Amino acid sequence: MPRIVDHHERRRVVAEYAAQLVSQGGLDAVTMRDVAAVAGTSTAIVSHYFRDKNELLRYTYTVAADSARGRIAAVLDADPGNVRGACESLLPIDDDRRQDWRIWFAFWGLAASEASFAEIHRDRTRFMVDTLTRAVRVARPGTRTAQAREIARGLLTVVVGIASQATFDPAEWTPTQQRRSMATQIGLLLPEA
Amino acid sequence: MPRIVDHHERRRVVAEYAAQLVSQGGLDAVTMRDVAAVAGTSTAIVSHYFRDKNELLRYTYTVAADSARGRIAAVLDADPGNVRGACESLLPIDDDRRQDWRIWFAFWGLAASEASFAEIHRDRTRFMVDTLTRAVRVARPGTRTAQAREIARGLLTVVVGIASQATFDPAEWTPTQQRRSMATQIGLLLPEA
Repeated sequence: MPRIVDHHERRRVVAEYAAQLVSQGGLDAVTMRDVAAVAGTSTAIVSHYFRDKNELLRYTYTVAADSARGRIAAVLDADPGNVRGACESLLPIDDDRRQDWRIWFAFWGLAASEASFAEIHRDRTRFMVDTLTRAVRVARPGTRTAQAREIARGLLTVVVGIASQATFDPAEWTPTQQRRSMATQIGLLLPEA
Repeated sequence: MPRIVDHHERRRVVAEYAAQLVSQGGLDAVTMRDVAAVAGTSTAIVSHYFRDKNELLRYTYTVAADSARGRIAAVLDADPGNVRGACESLLPIDDDRRQDWRIWFAFWGLAASEASFAEIHRDRTRFMVDTLTRAVRVARPGTRTAQAREIARGLLTVVVGIASQATFDPAEWTPTQQRRSMATQIGLLLPEA
């Protein structure tokens, strides 16, 4: 088992280097050789962990998705009804989260044309909707699941909409503006009982 | 002048072929040679219109942005206060609009890492916010510009959020579901006076 854990960890480390390259220069900036170079290893080692660039990219995409899942889970573990905190944990308001979104958007072209990437995209979205649905039901006990789900979809729609604009126009979409827009929409979707 | 008009038209036709390729297979699917092949012409002719792949892609991105601008303008020319129609004109609820969004998303990776693409993205977003701001003020006379702008931002945020989910998960986001979510959010952002 230690060998396998180690193998998983190393894959993840390689994918994190790939993620940095993607966030800086898009998918074209990533080759097995580039990743080996920034990771300070050889192409042969990278090829040991990933059969080809496509497998490396797919795993990199999954890692970026996991990082967002980790953030929202941490907020809701601490306070299961903290809808606002959960939403804000996803917004591109610091360097790490900005990098996550740049990576995420870099893959959208692939997700729009390749089924295996579309599946990762869909899984992440569904996880977020399920998670936010639970948070909404904690925040507003008695809300029916279908209605909570509709609210959760609305919240995620707003998160994606803000993130997509803020990533490309950070001057217009400062963290303050992002939080303000998010708070306004939360107020509309989830009015005080 | 006729020569110039012709030149512009031909550039646009070539870009439309490139757009089809992008929507089917992402940016990697596009080479000057591929575009020449689907356009039934030679690489030399394509090179006459576009210096390189980057220039071709930048123009293709602009054409996709123009097509969305044309749709929203047509709705508001007919009825300047038709906020709901304007928003729906942007949603991926038919093949043409689905293709536009797939193209749009295909370019997000580039827009996140290259300034000239980020600029096209920003221009489109600002045009949409300005256009929706005017529509909101017609629909709700007396609304202050700053407030109308905030509502317009909210509406566009919802459009982008719905489109991004619907493009990758069309089974969950049918046209009916898209319209319903849009209508709910319009009702929240722009309550009946």
